[in-house]
Amino acid sequence: MRSVTKDSITEVFLGYFGPDTDPRLKEIMSSLARHLHAFVKETGLTHAEWRQGIELLERAGAISDEERHEFVLLSDVLGVSSLVDMVHSNPEGTSSSVLGPFHIAGAPEIAYGCDLKRHYGGPLLLVEGCVRAPDGSPVPGARLDIWQTAPNGLYSSQDPEQETYSFHGIMTARADGRYAFTTVKPVSYTVPTDGPVGDILNATGRHPWRPSHLHYIVTAEGYRPLVTEVFPDDDPYLDEDTVFGVRDDLVMTYVEHPAETFPDGFELSGKVKAPYLKVDFDLVLTRA
Amino acid sequence: MRSVTKDSITEVFLGYFGPDTDPRLKEIMSSLARHLHAFVKETGLTHAEWRQGIELLERAGAISDEERHEFVLLSDVLGVSSLVDMVHSNPEGTSSSVLGPFHIAGAPEIAYGCDLKRHYGGPLLLVEGCVRAPDGSPVPGARLDIWQTAPNGLYSSQDPEQETYSFHGIMTARADGRYAFTTVKPVSYTVPTDGPVGDILNATGRHPWRPSHLHYIVTAEGYRPLVTEVFPDDDPYLDEDTVFGVRDDLVMTYVEHPAETFPDGFELSGKVKAPYLKVDFDLVLTRA
Repeated sequence: MRSVTKDSITEVFLGYFGPDTDPRLKEIMSSLARHLHAFVKETGLTHAEWRQGIELLERAGAISDEERHEFVLLSDVLGVSSLVDMVHSNPEGTSSSVLGPFHIAGAPEIAYGCDLKRHYGGPLLLVEGCVRAPDGSPVPGARLDIWQTAPNGLYSSQDPEQETYSFHGIMTARADGRYAFTTVKPVSYTVPTDGPVGDILNATGRHPWRPSHLHYIVTAEGYRPLVTEVFPDDDPYLDEDTVFGVRDDLVMTYVEHPAETFPDGFELSGKVKAPYLKVDFDLVLTRA
Repeated sequence: MRSVTKDSITEVFLGYFGPDTDPRLKEIMSSLARHLHAFVKETGLTHAEWRQGIELLERAGAISDEERHEFVLLSDVLGVSSLVDMVHSNPEGTSSSVLGPFHIAGAPEIAYGCDLKRHYGGPLLLVEGCVRAPDGSPVPGARLDIWQTAPNGLYSSQDPEQETYSFHGIMTARADGRYAFTTVKPVSYTVPTDGPVGDILNATGRHPWRPSHLHYIVTAEGYRPLVTEVFPDDDPYLDEDTVFGVRDDLVMTYVEHPAETFPDGFELSGKVKAPYLKVDFDLVLTRA
């Protein structure tokens, strides 16, 4: 194998693995190399194009930090993140959908019925639902990590005007599996376009919009973690999410309720006189 | 296309291109997405594995700077860099071989016959040859950007003990196309293993060694730039270069010449009494 050729290089690569390599790692690296090699051959990638690719990765690295995750965004706009979700979605449970680059760890505990809206303007939205097993039984004590954009279309990690954990919280489902909170209706927003991923979108004539949504990570002992989103059915970007996150079972009608009908049992009960929106979104977990 | 599925996502991705997208960019991005999607489906890549991949890219970004090019190294050890070289090698000319992450721009001009060895120890090597066109005619005035490791196996950009441009220089070929210089025989060395690429090599049971070599970038008006390397035929890593750079026509015998035979016309002429090594390496450029 002294003289590696374009016909032998994939074989040579596969021959380099040591005998003690973890079989799964070998499987992944072999598949990755085969596909990258096929990509280079199929496109006849030039040195100048290769260099543009390297520079793009270097720029993504340079713009990334604890709060900016440009490689996640790159994976998102290429459809890779959504595909990982879909490959592992269990049709017995709620579809999973992109985690995205804006989740931050360590959100505060929030109580059933609490308000995430605070002083922010925008249509009041009451969100409630039940965490259930595939057979319909509730999953008591499930943990829901919930986050969304502020009405300006920015997550707290993107916005110096917001507190660290505004529109973020972790709720424990009640014994009957139910969760509930109030917030403002999320808005459609653009993914960050000031980095190399924005340049890709721009150069390929793609818009950077995502339909509005609420994010959830739901965990419970004995169940597979669920990372998902819920979308309102009237969002103009529902059919062209730039990160490919929309699934039929995640699209819900946000129903408008008349003034003076806001229910009891919420932090805002007694304070809401105006009409409000409500979405009832059950989250079905599958067994681990 | 509201509900993207694992069977439709590649199609949806291809439908997102704007009508004014550069056709070549569309070709490259389409092929990349098709192969990345196939990779995810083929391996059933899990969220945890996806996250390990993202973290690897983030770590590569964090360790990279003006002098450390971890993404180039990643491309090198995956065989991607060598494949780009091979896809564009013209069999009428000298094979191209990996640029690698250690080239630095702006090396000083050096004269025909000059010495790059300076005060460094190690076997003296006289390198000479001719820059030629495929028909054998010389290419007068070709520019040769030459670089190599010091005897400690480090390039100047890796080694605070070296001057910025030690073992780097740019020579202009003479009117007869010839170039010549003295140096120390390059040594086998390891690619940097203190970053994520080193972790990949370690986890897959691969060694980090490259066979010893001299690097060249040769440019001349009317010809395609040539990025290449020349290897001695007695290097123990010749058959297992970790970055897949070895080609048959780049492997040369470094011939030992007896004491007191060092030729005239060199910076070191008259000063060398001991035996020395010599390699005669012609560089054949192809028309642009």
